[in-house]
Amino acid sequence: MAAEDQAKELPQVLVLGPPSIFPYLESQFSNRFLFLKPWLSKLPLTQFLTSFAQSAPALLIRGGGSTQLTSAILDCLPSLKLVVTSSVGVDHLNLPELRRRGVAIAYAGNVLAEDAADMAVGLLIDVLRKVSAGDRFVRQGLWSRKGDLPPGLKLSGKRIGIVGLGKIGSEVAKRLEGFGCKVSYNSRTKKSIAPYSYYSNVYELAANCEALIICCALTEETYHLINKEVMLALGKDGVIVNIGRGAIIDEKEMIRCLIQGEIGGAGLDVFENEPKIPKELFNLDNVVLSPHVAVMTYESSMELSKLVVDNLEAFFSNKSLVSPFVD
Amino acid sequence: MAAEDQAKELPQVLVLGPPSIFPYLESQFSNRFLFLKPWLSKLPLTQFLTSFAQSAPALLIRGGGSTQLTSAILDCLPSLKLVVTSSVGVDHLNLPELRRRGVAIAYAGNVLAEDAADMAVGLLIDVLRKVSAGDRFVRQGLWSRKGDLPPGLKLSGKRIGIVGLGKIGSEVAKRLEGFGCKVSYNSRTKKSIAPYSYYSNVYELAANCEALIICCALTEETYHLINKEVMLALGKDGVIVNIGRGAIIDEKEMIRCLIQGEIGGAGLDVFENEPKIPKELFNLDNVVLSPHVAVMTYESSMELSKLVVDNLEAFFSNKSLVSPFVD
Repeated sequence: MAAEDQAKELPQVLVLGPPSIFPYLESQFSNRFLFLKPWLSKLPLTQFLTSFAQSAPALLIRGGGSTQLTSAILDCLPSLKLVVTSSVGVDHLNLPELRRRGVAIAYAGNVLAEDAADMAVGLLIDVLRKVSAGDRFVRQGLWSRKGDLPPGLKLSGKRIGIVGLGKIGSEVAKRLEGFGCKVSYNSRTKKSIAPYSYYSNVYELAANCEALIICCALTEETYHLINKEVMLALGKDGVIVNIGRGAIIDEKEMIRCLIQGEIGGAGLDVFENEPKIPKELFNLDNVVLSPHVAVMTYESSMELSKLVVDNLEAFFSNKSLVSPFVD
Repeated sequence: MAAEDQAKELPQVLVLGPPSIFPYLESQFSNRFLFLKPWLSKLPLTQFLTSFAQSAPALLIRGGGSTQLTSAILDCLPSLKLVVTSSVGVDHLNLPELRRRGVAIAYAGNVLAEDAADMAVGLLIDVLRKVSAGDRFVRQGLWSRKGDLPPGLKLSGKRIGIVGLGKIGSEVAKRLEGFGCKVSYNSRTKKSIAPYSYYSNVYELAANCEALIICCALTEETYHLINKEVMLALGKDGVIVNIGRGAIIDEKEMIRCLIQGEIGGAGLDVFENEPKIPKELFNLDNVVLSPHVAVMTYESSMELSKLVVDNLEAFFSNKSLVSPFVD
């Protein structure tokens, strides 16, 4: 049997995005799945799907931000029974439509939580202590010409508010305890086992904290949750770190607050229209800009690759998904 | 009495460096001390000292790096009885000479330990997770043009070696425990109360760790302690963070190792000849360069200012120093 015929018998997996782990997956698992890669085709996406993905039962998609699973895409995929997203967030998946169509969902589960928490703390230290700004200062030769960089702000002992105390938020809290920080949180419900102060609304949390770390999912309820009032409550030395989704913050308002000194700084791994970023942010020294990499390290990309493949294998063997997403 | 005559009766404090907190000290305490400021004079330093500082009993000096208390300087200060350094390190003070002359020393003690530890962890996360490199990537507009930044390395769970488990090193260890790191250390003697693995030599520590954090003092014993052999033992993914003193690392060798990929990266707050930095470092993406600010935040500079003044007041009132440096 020719290689081409063999490939045709492999289970079809449509790939959208593609996820950053895809080159690795393709190099390792092309003998187990037939990956359909619309970005290599000159056809418009829906035309590619109609032509080549009609019978694809599984879809692998990258995390939100730039890639949305629209109804128009789903309409071209009548055989779809599984969506595997390489992300923790599922805001890009069009959940009501998937539910209506009876499509199962697998997601990244908890394998990325430690990395996300590490990065959240890294961004917080970076903004407070001006690490990236200091690196720019040195590389531009300003240290020997201009003398001391003005000092940053202390992290140890600070009152930090975590928005969303799920797996990632809890990992952030654990790390901040090591810095002697006083951790509070806001979430839909009070967590009985969490030893931190609970605020039922984010405005109160901001008013009682010196930094907010956004760890929640993007939903209808959290869209622009961090609005002007919350930022003003946080105050002029207050810092926001966002490792959730860009649209949880009213980005336009945040930029205004940053420029006018109504908040102190921001560490942003996610943006409303990434990878397009408002130009105004590029000129600010009190922000740290990160290209949506909070959840991704070499080590976790290996773990995530295994998880994605395990979910696909389970699906194609009629077994239970390894990391199903359940509302 | 004229203001000038009043000033003449204030206790004289010669200032060298000056420390970064000096503008604040001057603004607050010029009514309590007569600060002698040689950097404002056109005279060469020794000539200034001989002309104006013959009777100065106290000296305030900034931390090492660019400022050294040489014998030539001390020879011009026959009345000197106290040196107050605004730093934790005392490597710039010429200890044998001060001891021989019976000059007391006050230093920053522990007020900067938390900040130093926060920064050490921040630099470690930054190098592993490419925070500053990611910020450059985004600001240069590469995210939307080039796609994903290659992933960094995971911090959680890593084996981290601390060189020097004093107050700062212990604070670093405490923070790293929150990240699930396995902490080991090297110091002159095993600390009976520390719950971490002890290595009696730094080569063995490097061979068993994925990152080294330099927290020790610069002494004759620690000069170029981190040499080629130690770096090769740390290995090609290994990371070095230095918040101690530049000369604890063989900087030339480190740069060679960084360029040739024999170590993975470095987060450097201190340098051998700061603020002059080897140009080769500016072109490396696997280093984070920080202008010797690990111990300094707005909050700690206020604490340090109080400590400096308290030491000066104690000295001029014939009381015990608040934070004497004892070998």
